[in-house]
Amino acid sequence: MSDLFQNKNFTPLSELGEFGLIEHIQKNVKHYHSQTIKGIGDDAAVIEKNDTHYTLITTDILIEGIHFDLIYSPLKHLGYKAVVVNLSDIYAMNGTPKQIVLSLAVSNRFTLEAVEELYAGILLACEKYQVDLVGGDTSTIHKGMVINITAIGEVEKNKIVYRNGAKEKDLIVVTGDLGGAFMGLKILEREKAVFLENPKIQPDLEGNDYILERQLKPEARKDIIEEFERLNIQPTSMIDISDGLASEILHICKQSNVGCEIYEEKIPIDHQTYEKAREFNLDPTTCAMNGGEDYELLFTIPLSDYDKVKNHPDFSVIGYITEPSKKFNLISKSGTVHPIVAQGWKHF
Amino acid sequence: MSDLFQNKNFTPLSELGEFGLIEHIQKNVKHYHSQTIKGIGDDAAVIEKNDTHYTLITTDILIEGIHFDLIYSPLKHLGYKAVVVNLSDIYAMNGTPKQIVLSLAVSNRFTLEAVEELYAGILLACEKYQVDLVGGDTSTIHKGMVINITAIGEVEKNKIVYRNGAKEKDLIVVTGDLGGAFMGLKILEREKAVFLENPKIQPDLEGNDYILERQLKPEARKDIIEEFERLNIQPTSMIDISDGLASEILHICKQSNVGCEIYEEKIPIDHQTYEKAREFNLDPTTCAMNGGEDYELLFTIPLSDYDKVKNHPDFSVIGYITEPSKKFNLISKSGTVHPIVAQGWKHF
Repeated sequence: MSDLFQNKNFTPLSELGEFGLIEHIQKNVKHYHSQTIKGIGDDAAVIEKNDTHYTLITTDILIEGIHFDLIYSPLKHLGYKAVVVNLSDIYAMNGTPKQIVLSLAVSNRFTLEAVEELYAGILLACEKYQVDLVGGDTSTIHKGMVINITAIGEVEKNKIVYRNGAKEKDLIVVTGDLGGAFMGLKILEREKAVFLENPKIQPDLEGNDYILERQLKPEARKDIIEEFERLNIQPTSMIDISDGLASEILHICKQSNVGCEIYEEKIPIDHQTYEKAREFNLDPTTCAMNGGEDYELLFTIPLSDYDKVKNHPDFSVIGYITEPSKKFNLISKSGTVHPIVAQGWKHF
Repeated sequence: MSDLFQNKNFTPLSELGEFGLIEHIQKNVKHYHSQTIKGIGDDAAVIEKNDTHYTLITTDILIEGIHFDLIYSPLKHLGYKAVVVNLSDIYAMNGTPKQIVLSLAVSNRFTLEAVEELYAGILLACEKYQVDLVGGDTSTIHKGMVINITAIGEVEKNKIVYRNGAKEKDLIVVTGDLGGAFMGLKILEREKAVFLENPKIQPDLEGNDYILERQLKPEARKDIIEEFERLNIQPTSMIDISDGLASEILHICKQSNVGCEIYEEKIPIDHQTYEKAREFNLDPTTCAMNGGEDYELLFTIPLSDYDKVKNHPDFSVIGYITEPSKKFNLISKSGTVHPIVAQGWKHF
């Protein structure tokens, strides 16, 4: 038994990382049902529902000390965010979330009132996004808190969007702006360090409302799915931006077997994100490329749809899809070409 | 923030227990979709699928040190069991599981080879029960291991069985035998204590294969659902026995608004369970009533179906449903009447 634990003859998980581990495991997975349309490898699994619709399923685990820090995350915001990050995966398939189930493990450090705060946030998100909390499991745990949410949604069969449909010459489009959640986290981490050194000093959070909210209480882009319907846009590929633009565009390109060119000057960055990045001596573009947790949507559309997105306030065309041999490139403001490398969040 | 943590003005979760917490939270839950047929409160949630079928969803969280102990649980068995306990909830609705999604959090104490062992067990259960692993999430955690599985299944609309359909005079039937998983755990805990005191002593597990397997590698009663089909049995209510017979019959009775009489002499207990209980100075009936983790099915059928179950080797008729005012009673072998009280597992 203990042979399988840390031991120099065995492989530490850090050697593979999260994506490496998933790829490794995926190789041994077999499907037994023709009703399973798509398994591991997209934002959500796809299952036959009826003549017109597919069912979508996605799951996310959030762990105290890894994904959230209760020193600066109010429990109500945490509950809200836990739901939102799951719904985002359903929207990324061009679908509509309908139900969630929730597992919650809390140590005896948490009181009923604390758990009520968490649920207040969960139920607020359920109301805002019109999803039904239909089941769950609760348990104690020796230390900390673990939240697992599984979201169930549906999508019209002819509207579903996978990661693997991007075609050469397609435009690459991103919603909203990027890097804000990461800069919000940077501020919270800085103020936490100050607080731990001197608990009497009040945290300096003023003027950072937008990026703090991006980190603590993000929203999923339900509105974008409605815009697609209204504007008659059918993306050729789509993914939600949870691990940073670099990581996500690589998922789309690798699964679609294409290359890409992204223009630095086109990447949407809010002025608050930009100013704070400068203050922290960080490159704003790097924050947008690798920051993560923005929960915006990244998608591709045929060139012929350009008119539908060009003046839309929620959309930024940031580049285009190339042939696979061109690989994955970021064209800087000065015109130099940088290969795109996924940094993202490496939890292992 | 910290006000919501342990504090004498607030309510510790242990005051409510798991079921109390679920009931408390459930009060604030609203449903927004008519497609949500049944939410919290049964073995699985029920969602409209198509003209003939419902979709079933259930989720379970398993935590190292609470639900399993890696000192005596081989990782492959653990993976197998993690799947089985979820599938059991789908069978308890008279349904068929089709897919699962899996979240896994492991500390850096686990190597790739350890995670592979766990997945080998998960995929073995998937093969045996013909379910597709269609998605998941992986993360690191500071300490221990957390496994969350959500199972998705389906059931014909006219075949679905809830907890709340038991009627006066219905027969109460249980599958297999009870208390074995609990006695298996008792042996493993005893041998663990011996091992911790003197690691050189080999564990004494001989002659206990059946009850050890009941604990370490239980099976879900897929075969029973097939027997219902073959014998044309449509239970009026059903639940799986995860927390002990006492706890489960109370769920059925309270949700069906009925009472029950259960006959001690009719409760099926394997001879190995019986002998070991005696050896541990435990009452075998108490082990069956409150032991938990048997993953058998408890169901009710109309009296007119008695002939279908009476000589079946997998079924034991253990009592009958009474009017609600009669409450919940266990009739001992000597004829004395004991009120049934749920002990079950109290994780908080």
